[in-house]
Amino acid sequence: MKECDVAVIGGSAAGLTAAITARRFYSDKSVLIVRKEKNVLIPCGIPYIFGTVDSPAKNLIPDVILEKNNIDLLIGEVEQIEKEQKILKVAGSEDIKYGKLVIATGSDSIVPPIEGSDKENVFVVKKDVEYLNGLLDTINQSKNMAIIGGGFIGMEFADECKKNRDINISIIEMLPHCLMFTFDEEFCLYAEDLIREKGVEIITNEKVKSITGDKKVEGIRLESGKTIEADTVLMGIGSKPNSKIAEQAGIKVDQKGAVIVDRYMRTSGKDIFSCGDCCNKVSFFNKKPSNLMLASIATNEARIAGANLYKINRVNEGVIGTYSTVIGDTALSRAGISVREAKENGYDIVTGIAEGPNCHPGCMPGSCNLKVTLIFEKGSGIILGGELIGAKSGGELINLISGCIHERMSANDIATFQMGTHPALTASPIAYQISNAAEIAIKELRD
Amino acid sequence: MKECDVAVIGGSAAGLTAAITARRFYSDKSVLIVRKEKNVLIPCGIPYIFGTVDSPAKNLIPDVILEKNNIDLLIGEVEQIEKEQKILKVAGSEDIKYGKLVIATGSDSIVPPIEGSDKENVFVVKKDVEYLNGLLDTINQSKNMAIIGGGFIGMEFADECKKNRDINISIIEMLPHCLMFTFDEEFCLYAEDLIREKGVEIITNEKVKSITGDKKVEGIRLESGKTIEADTVLMGIGSKPNSKIAEQAGIKVDQKGAVIVDRYMRTSGKDIFSCGDCCNKVSFFNKKPSNLMLASIATNEARIAGANLYKINRVNEGVIGTYSTVIGDTALSRAGISVREAKENGYDIVTGIAEGPNCHPGCMPGSCNLKVTLIFEKGSGIILGGELIGAKSGGELINLISGCIHERMSANDIATFQMGTHPALTASPIAYQISNAAEIAIKELRD
Repeated sequence: MKECDVAVIGGSAAGLTAAITARRFYSDKSVLIVRKEKNVLIPCGIPYIFGTVDSPAKNLIPDVILEKNNIDLLIGEVEQIEKEQKILKVAGSEDIKYGKLVIATGSDSIVPPIEGSDKENVFVVKKDVEYLNGLLDTINQSKNMAIIGGGFIGMEFADECKKNRDINISIIEMLPHCLMFTFDEEFCLYAEDLIREKGVEIITNEKVKSITGDKKVEGIRLESGKTIEADTVLMGIGSKPNSKIAEQAGIKVDQKGAVIVDRYMRTSGKDIFSCGDCCNKVSFFNKKPSNLMLASIATNEARIAGANLYKINRVNEGVIGTYSTVIGDTALSRAGISVREAKENGYDIVTGIAEGPNCHPGCMPGSCNLKVTLIFEKGSGIILGGELIGAKSGGELINLISGCIHERMSANDIATFQMGTHPALTASPIAYQISNAAEIAIKELRD
Repeated sequence: MKECDVAVIGGSAAGLTAAITARRFYSDKSVLIVRKEKNVLIPCGIPYIFGTVDSPAKNLIPDVILEKNNIDLLIGEVEQIEKEQKILKVAGSEDIKYGKLVIATGSDSIVPPIEGSDKENVFVVKKDVEYLNGLLDTINQSKNMAIIGGGFIGMEFADECKKNRDINISIIEMLPHCLMFTFDEEFCLYAEDLIREKGVEIITNEKVKSITGDKKVEGIRLESGKTIEADTVLMGIGSKPNSKIAEQAGIKVDQKGAVIVDRYMRTSGKDIFSCGDCCNKVSFFNKKPSNLMLASIATNEARIAGANLYKINRVNEGVIGTYSTVIGDTALSRAGISVREAKENGYDIVTGIAEGPNCHPGCMPGSCNLKVTLIFEKGSGIILGGELIGAKSGGELINLISGCIHERMSANDIATFQMGTHPALTASPIAYQISNAAEIAIKELRD
């Protein structure tokens, strides 16, 4: 029997980061990752395989990180956790005796119960190199592609698949707008316009009834009766926690199938931790369940789990929810609570909006518009969220907003926050969007 | 006699922002800016006039901001403040009776007492459109340009003046390296290499003895005896507060000539505030005097001064010092205390360094290396500073670090901070530099 101090099941964002963190905090412990994939895909990079990056092989997490951090690797599928004996049964390998275990088994794409979803050329977003090579070959020969689901994945896939290809693409979204779970309506409309400009057709308020065709997909029938011609279908409607082996081992999972963890990332199993898409999450704001699954959340949880293996060092404060997408050259980002979510959760809010070039003067080359919305709780003036649209510098600026949320800064703190500015890199200090959005909110907070 | 509730002397970053803030906080008050310039230059944009932006006229703060904010403008030079009567004497205008006054008279370039500095074609960096048009014409005809001072201004001017011009440029710096007041040595060396690659000659450890020539400059003689041929000389060795009218009015200034303000930006004169380059500053960290002069600091102080005119709303916590420069396509940024300054001030520090692409996978187009150094106080683990070199996304990332400093976050807070990531916009969540630099520091903090 092989032995290790720390075993981690899963080698993607959560598992790898948990292993690295374990190594950093407990340098005398042996750390082993057991994963089923020969090569691990960068999860958020998957849509970019189909345009910008052009092959799964270029979108891998390099295993050299394991060597550099002195982390052992076993490629094989864990078939059973014997939690009393602290043993992992791995297909095609000897058993592994562990001291501490981290379950980071991630998530699987949801395949909706749609008639015909088993036809040839119907795909989901699977984190599997072979499978994605097959999807890439299919898209390269496709004339008409239908994407079911207008969330991040659907929008990014549509944008990428249009690049350097003569292909018709339609997105079918059952909600009134694409990206509705993510952004407030203004952003959704803006994003829809951007993707339409690329020649993508957007069909909203429509549910898929069936996928038609003989062996291969030939089209999609919508509940309205409308049909869409399609030789390729991609379903991007979300993911569900992959917690099968945890559940089989008697580790508690919630009604959605997520491994239940406490604030220290401990499961109900002795010496067993979990992090990433496979475990349950709560909101930073109200500690209610959160449905978000993001690689950045996974690594955050992994840094907590890895640090806590032998001693509690860190606490999970819940999900802020900070993320970005790009359509064409426009970045859309958000952190915290959106206006709609704030209203749905009974917050009384004040917003401040500031807009202007992300360089100064505005004639600097590469200058783009950047619009910032900050959302504050009316009584306290504490920031609840922020949304950005425009320049790609927003991808880091949203992290400043996330930091403000994390520190529960008030509008006044943010307005007088000491930013650095530079003509080629940021808005002018007079027009700096974060400061001005806060100032504008303060005016209303004071009224 | 003209009357106004709030008069602001100066219409650049500080004055304009103070006026806007006064408008936001005190909507029933009349606000008047008195400034001597017909057009106001964007101060940090001045070096870019000589390359990227190509004329002073394209680097102006638009007066439409005044109209939009219902701020009155008087163009004229204030000759006297009669602080007992609350009257401003303005050249060529009727007197102005004010209720509250903000002195935002900025700074003037230092002209060092060098023999020959009054010769034709010897320039400083003056915030004056006519003067800069003259400098631009001269540089356009120049074959050999010497820049005295290798700080931000000197380096940015050298980089810009090289663009689309057949011109020899040398920078003369009396310290061992350029940018030494700003960055730790590694950054200085890196920046020097970048600017040398552009064909700029760097002469360090050398003082200028005299500027030679008949009426016009012909060269520079260094104290070492070496001579440099030059038909144009630009002096970029720093600025001094422009506090003449304040001092004449009996308002207290410090030994450097800066208007003395308290934490609320109040001067010693009743109902008189000051902000920007003309007033004194203290460090955020130890409250000792700070010599920094930045437009971003000026606007920060202006937001405090403007808000406090009729009621104390905000406190100045002292200068963090967050700023960026760009040489070629490389951004160099810093916030807070550098390693050298930490050591000079007796801090026991731990640093964490993380480096990698600013996109993921690294083959994404436009991906650049980004190296982050975070500096922590050893006992408390609280962040003192950060330095970035590489990708232009660092221009906003340094503001996240500034936010961490402002909130006195610990290495542990920063390591578990919830960033958002995206392939085209940021490093991967596994490799996110801020998180990893903090993790690396924690390892040492724990040892």
